[in-house]
Amino acid sequence: MTDYSPPARDVIFVLKDLLRVHERSEPANYEMVDEDLIETIAHEAGKFCAQVVAPLNRNADEQGCTRHADGSVTTPDGFKQAYDEWVESGWGTLPQPEEFGGQGMPHALFTVIEEYLNSACAGFMMYPGILPGAVATVMSSASEDLKQTYLPKMVSGEWLATMALTEGHAGTDLGLMKTTATKRGNGAYSISGEKIFISGGDHDLTDNIVHLVLARVPDAPAGSRGISLFLVPKIMPDSGEKNGVSVGSIEHKMGLHGSATCVLNFDEATGFLLGEENGGLAAMFIMMNAARLAVGVQGLGHAEHAYQKAAAYALERKQGRAMGDRPDPSAAADSLIVHPDVRRMLMDARAFIEGFRALVLWTSVQIDVSHGAQSREERKKADGLVSFLTPVIKAFGSDRGFEVAVNMQQVFGGHGYVTEWGMEQIVRDARIPMIYEGANGVQALDLAGRKTAKDGGAVAQAFFSMIASECEEAGEALAFIADPLGKAVHHGEAAAKALLENGAQDPNDMAGGAYAWMQLVGTLAIGWQWLRLAKLAQDQLDAGEGDPAFLSAKLATARFYAEQQLPLCTTLRHRVKAGAGAMMALEAEQFLRS
Amino acid sequence: MTDYSPPARDVIFVLKDLLRVHERSEPANYEMVDEDLIETIAHEAGKFCAQVVAPLNRNADEQGCTRHADGSVTTPDGFKQAYDEWVESGWGTLPQPEEFGGQGMPHALFTVIEEYLNSACAGFMMYPGILPGAVATVMSSASEDLKQTYLPKMVSGEWLATMALTEGHAGTDLGLMKTTATKRGNGAYSISGEKIFISGGDHDLTDNIVHLVLARVPDAPAGSRGISLFLVPKIMPDSGEKNGVSVGSIEHKMGLHGSATCVLNFDEATGFLLGEENGGLAAMFIMMNAARLAVGVQGLGHAEHAYQKAAAYALERKQGRAMGDRPDPSAAADSLIVHPDVRRMLMDARAFIEGFRALVLWTSVQIDVSHGAQSREERKKADGLVSFLTPVIKAFGSDRGFEVAVNMQQVFGGHGYVTEWGMEQIVRDARIPMIYEGANGVQALDLAGRKTAKDGGAVAQAFFSMIASECEEAGEALAFIADPLGKAVHHGEAAAKALLENGAQDPNDMAGGAYAWMQLVGTLAIGWQWLRLAKLAQDQLDAGEGDPAFLSAKLATARFYAEQQLPLCTTLRHRVKAGAGAMMALEAEQFLRS
Repeated sequence: MTDYSPPARDVIFVLKDLLRVHERSEPANYEMVDEDLIETIAHEAGKFCAQVVAPLNRNADEQGCTRHADGSVTTPDGFKQAYDEWVESGWGTLPQPEEFGGQGMPHALFTVIEEYLNSACAGFMMYPGILPGAVATVMSSASEDLKQTYLPKMVSGEWLATMALTEGHAGTDLGLMKTTATKRGNGAYSISGEKIFISGGDHDLTDNIVHLVLARVPDAPAGSRGISLFLVPKIMPDSGEKNGVSVGSIEHKMGLHGSATCVLNFDEATGFLLGEENGGLAAMFIMMNAARLAVGVQGLGHAEHAYQKAAAYALERKQGRAMGDRPDPSAAADSLIVHPDVRRMLMDARAFIEGFRALVLWTSVQIDVSHGAQSREERKKADGLVSFLTPVIKAFGSDRGFEVAVNMQQVFGGHGYVTEWGMEQIVRDARIPMIYEGANGVQALDLAGRKTAKDGGAVAQAFFSMIASECEEAGEALAFIADPLGKAVHHGEAAAKALLENGAQDPNDMAGGAYAWMQLVGTLAIGWQWLRLAKLAQDQLDAGEGDPAFLSAKLATARFYAEQQLPLCTTLRHRVKAGAGAMMALEAEQFLRS
Repeated sequence: MTDYSPPARDVIFVLKDLLRVHERSEPANYEMVDEDLIETIAHEAGKFCAQVVAPLNRNADEQGCTRHADGSVTTPDGFKQAYDEWVESGWGTLPQPEEFGGQGMPHALFTVIEEYLNSACAGFMMYPGILPGAVATVMSSASEDLKQTYLPKMVSGEWLATMALTEGHAGTDLGLMKTTATKRGNGAYSISGEKIFISGGDHDLTDNIVHLVLARVPDAPAGSRGISLFLVPKIMPDSGEKNGVSVGSIEHKMGLHGSATCVLNFDEATGFLLGEENGGLAAMFIMMNAARLAVGVQGLGHAEHAYQKAAAYALERKQGRAMGDRPDPSAAADSLIVHPDVRRMLMDARAFIEGFRALVLWTSVQIDVSHGAQSREERKKADGLVSFLTPVIKAFGSDRGFEVAVNMQQVFGGHGYVTEWGMEQIVRDARIPMIYEGANGVQALDLAGRKTAKDGGAVAQAFFSMIASECEEAGEALAFIADPLGKAVHHGEAAAKALLENGAQDPNDMAGGAYAWMQLVGTLAIGWQWLRLAKLAQDQLDAGEGDPAFLSAKLATARFYAEQQLPLCTTLRHRVKAGAGAMMALEAEQFLRS
């Protein structure tokens, strides 16, 4: 019994009709992908999430996780069984390397499952959600011995993993961390320190947990250049003995109660170096980039779940009368769906969800291309686009996912504020993606600095040019979106120019416009996907293929996006251009009330 | 011990320097207002809220209210004592009618206390916060007997009150309500039915509670024309016997846990008619309009509280390095306040808070004028502006208050998501003002329909003209805000025209643009206040009066608003103009995923 239906039809429309992933011959692992596989994943993984995972969601919030007197942690009722079923189902091994027992399938396919899992129960998703990034990190930086010991069980899901980065005084600024790593005689290291905010820091889902821990070796350079990455198991695989890792406490959070967010104490724990000493940040970034895309997908998952509940409520709940024709003139009231302002919120949700899903899946294909295309040129191009869009997908996806959840809660009126209907839980759960894996302001700075200014805006311009040329080729029937999108691209190009000029003058001016720049790129990128979705829908309609109701809804939603969201680009351009003058004008103390 | 400092200096700057309320000779009760009184209220009421009320806030959230086996309700620890002190302090009687023991002071002064109370503890504020509206309703519609029995104790705060409107199937659409009122022989009525979401439906703060209840008399016309208003005491004042009112349950809410939100069962309870039979909605609207302004002030209070915590944290927390000059080059990290993106969020909070406070206090003066000015013409003009701005203050104030709270939570990074720092509580508490007292979408429709289209846009145009002429007179030194504000007024006028044209064509098109219209008027109205604040600050600086640091911060914040918020008006104009075509395109069933 659940209120979540996996949006399989929309997923198939994007993967098969729009991206035609089953027709790709490379990267090589796309050879495995045929129409049946797309359908199977869209439907069957969806069934699993809806039937096994979604029923956990409400209780996960109410019960939360428990730290027992002996320091062990248990997850909410049902998590262990659902996790066992997850492992057995094999869905989790889909993108994992075949070498270690995975299925080696494209990342793009797993992205669908990430969305479903998050819609079904975000607190549950946190446990297996970290594995692909953790496996990739170990793959790229561990010794052969470590790989053989750890990867098979991580790939299968028999063991879970954590990212142990944050310390009380070192969040965004990892360079401030104090956890130490001292080399022992046997090549291992002794790790000591306290880490906070560690998702899945302990739990009862797996017998062992593989902590990936950032720490400093003695005499390491100050700051982020002196950080090393270590693999620290909860239980030593050879001896079966407990390692020196313990849970100090479970954090009390606004939401995501199903996920055990732990304070972890490392007390001379045995750790194994991954990569080089002092090269930890680079090794960890492999994990963080995967995690950042997944966090954007969380925004999508929350938005979809919230939308489904709000749409169902709007059709069911009778309140007020239609202003135009009344569906049933004799009724005392019409359903909420007759009211334009309710539809405004629902259409905005659809416009974000469907456009962003297309963007995320397109980007996931590019990730696969960046890793596996034969041509170096093609890999490089894809990698540039992925790097550029990663902070946008993380930040814009989580911002808008939260905003949509809040709007969907609003559809319920007062009933949205009481726990009974589940909307307030989605809002609380949807708040954290804006913060973790690099707060959204940091993502915006990454986009503006490293991903835009560093190459003089080259990738940004290539991205805009791609969109502009699609606008030009769109033709009359699509002018309703191609024209405003073309204008928005123009604002984007002007904003990029302003950003670079500001940055050349004073880096603070670039930083002051970074957030608006991120929002502008996000708004444009989704608009671009809507142009593609609209073109596809129009082509299918013209050809008499597909379901006219489904396709006409796509065209109407594209129009909504063009009318309501694309006009934001002019405002955002102004904000980028304004720089940081007014922001930096106050002395620090002037911010305090007196 | 509290983290909240009443922003007395800012309040005095608005009431005294900007609005010069101490110099007003009318309405008559402004004769009571001198500079000392302004200072006393700003400081002493602030002290009360910070010292007596604010310490309740954290526990109120954690402990919540309790319904006992006998159906009685107790509030969180400390509420009863704080409420007794509140009554004793006399702050609550400030705006109440002298005839019944109040102080008869201007509403504008009480608005300050409403803001403080809400910042200090929103859950506590809910109990006394309802009294001014309840008293006004009883004043305007009760028989002399009822007034003599109830008003002295309501005015003093010895008894509290509720607004009992909502039923399970009747929220926004009160016309659907089913609670019945049957006339008895003695002139009283017998009230039966179930009401939900009743704030302060029961509690241990006062011996008696005065419920203002909407119900239907037999053979009442269908819909909202058949609703009557009744006064239903919890305890009969003459006999001391319990009336037929009981608490079915306390709602489990996302936040505002200190406020007992009850399901109330009326079982042949004795009620007394207020006003005429079937005239209940008009009588209740006296209360709802006061409540709507107060809800906007809640948004302000939440934003101010969240801002203070975030500003203090940003100065304290060391994370990352400044991109330009470093305050302390030898330190490992600078405080967050060096980062433009952190300042962006803090400046945005200031720009909303200070501009909106000025707007709210200006409007509060207009409320006083609309009730008490000698000239009918002046009363009418003020009433028109108050009616126009009430839905804007309610909806825009609560929307932006929530948004600011979310941004201030973001300043804390991961620490904002854990309960320990109190930011997530503010966000949860700040969510409800967007919903209750008429959800914000309903406010937007009220603004677009009744307050704009109904008079052909006359009040809107008068409002814009007032702003435009102030822009023209602003002079060179203020061009940095007067010019963009003038452009924004132009967008506002164009949007008003589009709204009216759309409405003439199809009421749905007007409704589809209503929300953007509300946001546009709100954005403009705050910009207008910033022009006034900037002019005042510049004048004082030019005259060598006042604290340059305080005044220069006002100018910088005005510039921030001009650069970051006013450019939104062009986007909002586009949205108003777009109407509802894309929103209404889907059949209801197309909103469901399949």
